[in-house]
Amino acid sequence: MIIHFKKDTTSTQIEELRSEIQGIIFQQDNESILVSPSSLKQVPQQFQSIVSSEYVMTSDIQLADKSYIKHREIQLDDLVIGNGMNTHLIGGPCSVESWEQIDQTASFLKNLGIKTLRAGCFKPRTSPYTFQGLGEEGLELLAKAREKHGLNIITEVKDSSHIDLVIEHTDIVQIGTKAMYDTSILRRCGQSNKPILLKRGFGSTLQEFVQAAEFILSQGNPNVILCERGIRTFESKTRFTLDLTGVAYIKHHINLPIFVDPSHAMGYRYGVPDLTRAAVAMGIDGLLIETHPTPEKALSDASQQLNFDEFEQMYHSLQPVAQAVGRTII
Amino acid sequence: MIIHFKKDTTSTQIEELRSEIQGIIFQQDNESILVSPSSLKQVPQQFQSIVSSEYVMTSDIQLADKSYIKHREIQLDDLVIGNGMNTHLIGGPCSVESWEQIDQTASFLKNLGIKTLRAGCFKPRTSPYTFQGLGEEGLELLAKAREKHGLNIITEVKDSSHIDLVIEHTDIVQIGTKAMYDTSILRRCGQSNKPILLKRGFGSTLQEFVQAAEFILSQGNPNVILCERGIRTFESKTRFTLDLTGVAYIKHHINLPIFVDPSHAMGYRYGVPDLTRAAVAMGIDGLLIETHPTPEKALSDASQQLNFDEFEQMYHSLQPVAQAVGRTII
Amino acid sequence: MIIHFKKDTTSTQIEELRSEIQGIIFQQDNESILVSPSSLKQVPQQFQSIVSSEYVMTSDIQLADKSYIKHREIQLDDLVIGNGMNTHLIGGPCSVESWEQIDQTASFLKNLGIKTLRAGCFKPRTSPYTFQGLGEEGLELLAKAREKHGLNIITEVKDSSHIDLVIEHTDIVQIGTKAMYDTSILRRCGQSNKPILLKRGFGSTLQEFVQAAEFILSQGNPNVILCERGIRTFESKTRFTLDLTGVAYIKHHINLPIFVDPSHAMGYRYGVPDLTRAAVAMGIDGLLIETHPTPEKALSDASQQLNFDEFEQMYHSLQPVAQAVGRTII
Amino acid sequence: MIIHFKKDTTSTQIEELRSEIQGIIFQQDNESILVSPSSLKQVPQQFQSIVSSEYVMTSDIQLADKSYIKHREIQLDDLVIGNGMNTHLIGGPCSVESWEQIDQTASFLKNLGIKTLRAGCFKPRTSPYTFQGLGEEGLELLAKAREKHGLNIITEVKDSSHIDLVIEHTDIVQIGTKAMYDTSILRRCGQSNKPILLKRGFGSTLQEFVQAAEFILSQGNPNVILCERGIRTFESKTRFTLDLTGVAYIKHHINLPIFVDPSHAMGYRYGVPDLTRAAVAMGIDGLLIETHPTPEKALSDASQQLNFDEFEQMYHSLQPVAQAVGRTII
Repeated sequence: MIIHFKKDTTSTQIEELRSEIQGIIFQQDNESILVSPSSLKQVPQQFQSIVSSEYVMTSDIQLADKSYIKHREIQLDDLVIGNGMNTHLIGGPCSVESWEQIDQTASFLKNLGIKTLRAGCFKPRTSPYTFQGLGEEGLELLAKAREKHGLNIITEVKDSSHIDLVIEHTDIVQIGTKAMYDTSILRRCGQSNKPILLKRGFGSTLQEFVQAAEFILSQGNPNVILCERGIRTFESKTRFTLDLTGVAYIKHHINLPIFVDPSHAMGYRYGVPDLTRAAVAMGIDGLLIETHPTPEKALSDASQQLNFDEFEQMYHSLQPVAQAVGRTII
Repeated sequence: MIIHFKKDTTSTQIEELRSEIQGIIFQQDNESILVSPSSLKQVPQQFQSIVSSEYVMTSDIQLADKSYIKHREIQLDDLVIGNGMNTHLIGGPCSVESWEQIDQTASFLKNLGIKTLRAGCFKPRTSPYTFQGLGEEGLELLAKAREKHGLNIITEVKDSSHIDLVIEHTDIVQIGTKAMYDTSILRRCGQSNKPILLKRGFGSTLQEFVQAAEFILSQGNPNVILCERGIRTFESKTRFTLDLTGVAYIKHHINLPIFVDPSHAMGYRYGVPDLTRAAVAMGIDGLLIETHPTPEKALSDASQQLNFDEFEQMYHSLQPVAQAVGRTII
Repeated sequence: MIIHFKKDTTSTQIEELRSEIQGIIFQQDNESILVSPSSLKQVPQQFQSIVSSEYVMTSDIQLADKSYIKHREIQLDDLVIGNGMNTHLIGGPCSVESWEQIDQTASFLKNLGIKTLRAGCFKPRTSPYTFQGLGEEGLELLAKAREKHGLNIITEVKDSSHIDLVIEHTDIVQIGTKAMYDTSILRRCGQSNKPILLKRGFGSTLQEFVQAAEFILSQGNPNVILCERGIRTFESKTRFTLDLTGVAYIKHHINLPIFVDPSHAMGYRYGVPDLTRAAVAMGIDGLLIETHPTPEKALSDASQQLNFDEFEQMYHSLQPVAQAVGRTII
Repeated sequence: MIIHFKKDTTSTQIEELRSEIQGIIFQQDNESILVSPSSLKQVPQQFQSIVSSEYVMTSDIQLADKSYIKHREIQLDDLVIGNGMNTHLIGGPCSVESWEQIDQTASFLKNLGIKTLRAGCFKPRTSPYTFQGLGEEGLELLAKAREKHGLNIITEVKDSSHIDLVIEHTDIVQIGTKAMYDTSILRRCGQSNKPILLKRGFGSTLQEFVQAAEFILSQGNPNVILCERGIRTFESKTRFTLDLTGVAYIKHHINLPIFVDPSHAMGYRYGVPDLTRAAVAMGIDGLLIETHPTPEKALSDASQQLNFDEFEQMYHSLQPVAQAVGRTII
């Protein structure tokens, strides 16, 4: 359950309660909040006098549940993510490969009016023998692109060895599909106040996905964006299966903004525009789409990245769909 | 491979070739066509003189492959399914329960301008102890509704024991998700010329799904509609996972019209409108949506059927999305 | 719930109760039994006087649940299936291809001491362009083999069009993985008294699997054998994933004999002996293993059938494993 | 491809080749070995004179492939893992909870003749609000148990923040199912020479699983043990689905020892003994089984841990099964 306290409650009193019922204390808007396991359904009698409000929860999806807070928005400079009016489009290549590639892409996106650039530096590849990303050098190229083109930067943290570096260099920190269960990353991101885009593990249930967000939220960082990117099923004609039924579940039950990444789900560029339009028509908060100046030469995910012409053509088709559902692509 | 023959080829010659290479002969536009296993890559030398054209195929998806025929349309009275301009909306309850229920629903849909009514008579339930459908009595109620309201009727054939009855009473024959592998049903539908809506088995790969259509096509019935209705995955918060990545695959590779059924995929009415809009935005050919005068009293699928208000509200939201992708809902 | 009645209850009284609470009445040991949906938790007051015993059930797994009957055995001539002491080994080719093939195989198995021959006549293939089985001709070859070699015969019913024929010609009727949901087949098998081997649908949950058996049991045929044969998962290096965790579930909760078919799960002959030994070590009631005189020439499932040497070598390795868990291979 | 070099080749020459074709150089038995992506099928002409042998591979499963090395054994003091004669049984609780619990368990296992104790200190829980493990304190309790009882210790590394600590304190390092893709952990373990037990991710293909081992092997640590522990499927009656078809694949194609963990796959103690016997009958190299003095009070995985009586009873049933397949449980 989630417990709020009366104004004059001391931190000693809260800690006494916590040590009795277990759970996590965090600060939110200068207030201490205690979240105990959802199996607890009642505050012990002797502590009830310090409680101002309590929320009994059905599962350990607690802080992210609409029954606690109906809706959360995230401020990123002058952008608001999750305001119900915009769908935030993020583009860029799978990996940072060179300054020229990043500079070209940033320039292309900027001209279209896109505000955020994505690109990976620490790549969680499944083979040790292929390109593993530029690492810290990639982060520096992204920082340079940000400065030159005035774009926000989002890049992925792969494991806890470089997490501080990534938090420092980016505007939005992405936790990738293979790191979703890494509680060190999750907790460390919870101690930052940067927006965190959390991708669903491709083998993860919705329950586990949102509970991973709880690790961040319960450290005091409310700026969590969920991102559906395809789950692993028996179907092998496509790389993954984009779970838009799951997105419908999240829109209905969860108070966090939801993004969709159709590129990784599909695995082939031909399906990306159709799936992007589908996601927009659902009224989602944002999109991650892979684009590369010369996809056929890309060092990773070559088959699924759109070239600039394809991306631009798709881009222009999105606004009418967004408007049909009362949104604007930004 | 698919083999077409020169004008004066005799059926004896074609049969001689067939007995040599195996496969199926069927009639299309007064022409005999032979389809042999795709493992065959060349017509034997001695038969080449009777061949007018041959199509070497990579898998046993042959007649449905865009490399053979780019695009197929189906004429249903004055409607054309799969013409790239319309998205055909079909509504109705999960099961026929009574004349009153069907009459009310038909009247409601007719008033909205909808042209086709869906409802099941032979229900493939997973428990023997629950409502199993009205059977033949249900077919008669549907026939009565067709006559009174001037709607097309689509209903499901569950197994081969009642297939002739269903073909006789309906305008479109639905082969349900649990009967997709029933080759007796598939072949018998192939000998009809009625439009056949083939639902994907929830445990079936796209390859198997389209190959099931090949059983129908290779008996000479070109009027096959594919319908994605959700696949079974590890996720249990939703009833199934709607595979729109699979729909993107079909749109790109297969020449048959593609419909989507979001009701069965989601399993809960709250997600149906969003998923329907998503499907429309992909540019699909049709939709099956469950609606019931009083869903909470429905004898099957109570949780996923929209009531009339919900259906109507959703209906009006679809046209703008369709127009955004160059389609019209009919 | 399952309801037994006092001795002098009339069939009119039982039917009155049934029409009130819904459900199915069947005969067992000259007694009428009524099974109503498991959602019913109490017999209506006015009918309690005719009830001798009632079983409240948690799901529509009712007749197959150990809380109703602890354990069921099936008599097949002088064999007892499910007696906890034997593991019944069934061998034979995927398909009947010719008399010579069946005669050779029957002779080989008979010499090893095996008592039952498997082979398919009506093949539920996924492509229409490949070998579809010999159909009725195959049944006749199997009948001939039975007479000559004195083996029991098990073959598969694929759809309801030929079900009477199969019931007539075989000693055990197999319902295949693709027909598991076909309630016409299930009900018709329930009206026979032949042993029915029901294979799990490869996309079916354990709940649905056992509920399919309920369709047979609730028609009055208690002779149902369950058979696990691999489920469809994301793994594609093997044909299916043999679900022995599911077998453990069935052994613990369900009162029906359980068989295992490792050949179809693996899809490659190299893994079949190891998986067979694994299944034997679990203390199962029977096995279906594919063997063919010349697997590389088989018209179906060529990659997974053992040749006679491989089968024999595996056969001799099974007895020690069986003995280690207190069983005997027969 | 994998490339071995002639005796007098210099490290400069090898590095020149590597910079030309990409890949990883590591030391094995005082020899430098270069592994390049498997897409490379030929050493460039100008370097062929320095090559002593080359192995062309079909996928990035290279060092673990039987076509490179047929079989690998691991020496752990006087134990040999993977020698084809023994099945190494490892027992212990899910988590270290207290000294008393660990001391009791260690004493119990030692008396049975078991040589290795398992227990988790850093628990990758899916909820932040439940027990997260004792962390470093747990490692110290395990070290104390090793000293007192003379058992080997295996415990899990959860993320890269505590990896050096775990490597230092244990005899076998376990990489858990949720950390399988963490390439920082994998590479760091590759720089150790401790035996590494790598659990399959529950959403990971066999290809990805063995490629994760390649990250370790290609850093020069040949002491990798694979462990199958259940994959995630649509079935929810059991916690996961134990993939013994996958174990058959690994035994046939991969040169590393293979262990099985039935406890996590099943999720319920009732199925663990049967599945353990099944795994033993396949001829595997080792087992991880959860046992706890009072499972009902366990702070994690309460439902699947055997109590000591159950464990002992199961233990005594394993030896006959092992002997039936030519192995001994140690």
